Amino acid sequence: MTFKEKLIGAARKNNSWLCVGLDPDLSQIPEHLGHDIDAILKFNRAVIEATCDLVCAYKPNGAFYESLGSQGWELLIETAKSIPENIPLILDFKRGDIGNTAKMYARSAFEIIGADAVTVSPYMGTDSFQPFLDYVDKGVFVLCLTSNPSAFELQKKIVLLENPPSAEWMTPQAKARTFAEFFGASTTDLYLLVASLVPEWNKNDNVGLVVGATVVSELEAVRKKVGGEIPILIPGVGAQGGDLERSVDAGSNGRAELAIINIARGVIYAGGQEKNFRQKIRAAAENYRAQIMDAATRKIKYSAGR
Amino acid sequence: MTFKEKLIGAARKNNSWLCVGLDPDLSQIPEHLGHDIDAILKFNRAVIEATCDLVCAYKPNGAFYESLGSQGWELLIETAKSIPENIPLILDFKRGDIGNTAKMYARSAFEIIGADAVTVSPYMGTDSFQPFLDYVDKGVFVLCLTSNPSAFELQKKIVLLENPPSAEWMTPQAKARTFAEFFGASTTDLYLLVASLVPEWNKNDNVGLVVGATVVSELEAVRKKVGGEIPILIPGVGAQGGDLERSVDAGSNGRAELAIINIARGVIYAGGQEKNFRQKIRAAAENYRAQIMDAATRKIKYSAGR
Repeated sequence: MTFKEKLIGAARKNNSWLCVGLDPDLSQIPEHLGHDIDAILKFNRAVIEATCDLVCAYKPNGAFYESLGSQGWELLIETAKSIPENIPLILDFKRGDIGNTAKMYARSAFEIIGADAVTVSPYMGTDSFQPFLDYVDKGVFVLCLTSNPSAFELQKKIVLLENPPSAEWMTPQAKARTFAEFFGASTTDLYLLVASLVPEWNKNDNVGLVVGATVVSELEAVRKKVGGEIPILIPGVGAQGGDLERSVDAGSNGRAELAIINIARGVIYAGGQEKNFRQKIRAAAENYRAQIMDAATRKIKYSAGR
Repeated sequence: MTFKEKLIGAARKNNSWLCVGLDPDLSQIPEHLGHDIDAILKFNRAVIEATCDLVCAYKPNGAFYESLGSQGWELLIETAKSIPENIPLILDFKRGDIGNTAKMYARSAFEIIGADAVTVSPYMGTDSFQPFLDYVDKGVFVLCLTSNPSAFELQKKIVLLENPPSAEWMTPQAKARTFAEFFGASTTDLYLLVASLVPEWNKNDNVGLVVGATVVSELEAVRKKVGGEIPILIPGVGAQGGDLERSVDAGSNGRAELAIINIARGVIYAGGQEKNFRQKIRAAAENYRAQIMDAATRKIKYSAGR
């Protein structure tokens, strides 16, 4: 079974496009679970047990495990094992490196940790994550537009789709004219350039994109660019302030699918320090799922009414 | 002592701008050392012992350790401990993530592994590696231009330095005219845009750049852009085919310093399967050091003669 089949299968079975971010911080988990790595594993398992019929995927972020040293990697592997077989695990670790090195990262994610999908960074170009793409049954989410405040610095720069020929010898004025005359409006934002490369990467039908929920019109532009068959992983709803309903609407395809809404803190810390934190976590996940699926249903109705 | 002081101190003491990449692959290390993780630690220690008076830094790439699971992280920590106190450790792991997550990665690199410097990816923008910059005594090398074949896809795209105002409502023709009239030649390659952001990042004098040795004129352009005080980490010489002498010339500043030439396979596998692999590794490092410092000396003479 491919990642995409597993993802869609889980989403349909659980009627949910909610992905729960497993980003446990020892300073925020219930104290009565303890204060060591075992407490985090207990916490992750509690979150999974409380939500595994309410989600389409889990997304642990590698940083939260790495920061615990080698025990953190054991924790990540044990957490992965605790996720039911039918729910995909998206390892958010934003890697990318030269070929022989990227191969090592892919081995780490898919063979050691057992992830069903990963996130990668596009800055180094295709070959820096080709070894991930070569695992045909695994998913690869490429960072497109991220939800952090500094994302604009590079991602929203306007780029020329093709570099003008032999521009070196030209005067600035001539260069400017060439840009205008030869390339006209053949410009795009860098993040949309990334989106436009998806068909090249998607030969195994295993590519997705990461697009933050902070500006909905941009999410819309990406969905339009990549068409309806590409999963979009959407962080930034909840603690980071993105608009849930409009994100679902903008990110999903014509069938109200493939918009994976990731929520971490809003679900996993919903129980605070309380004894019944499991119920609170479940209630939070149920609430988010309802909001997401309501928005998705409205979208279907709206589309059908067009 | 800051990272930069430690780096310059080691380079001057050992008269070397050679950095050895500690990227051990179990399938390539001498078989007589064994076939488990301990064998890799023995190998790393042998490399360090054979070269620690010949280098300015060591650069382990995280992928080679991660791919060994949690034991790999122990291996990385033990390897870090085996490096003499006066030689800086640059952890090449190309991270970057939203603020609270980047903090975790910084903690992992600087506090658990004990790295003196790291590499980070610029795609998500400043806040995705600000937590690294906040460690004032540690170094942060931002990916600028990498040495892999696909680097051109994003890094060499031409970008507008400033986005034109309210371009949304304009026709393509009007857009093109605006680009030409208002912005003229205010364009740059994406990797040079990254280089131009260095002054903003460098408030603690702890920023460097990663610039591959594959096209020397581009390395030259980056050095010109950032001035003489920024360390440039230069991979891609050796196994990847970059020209060593011209890279030293283009990458170093007016004092023939701060061009860190990284060689991994060309040094660490120089001994093949031989019993005396230590001597072969040392000889390879001596040879690379001589080439680097010869080129540097010629550069000084050449500069003085101008």
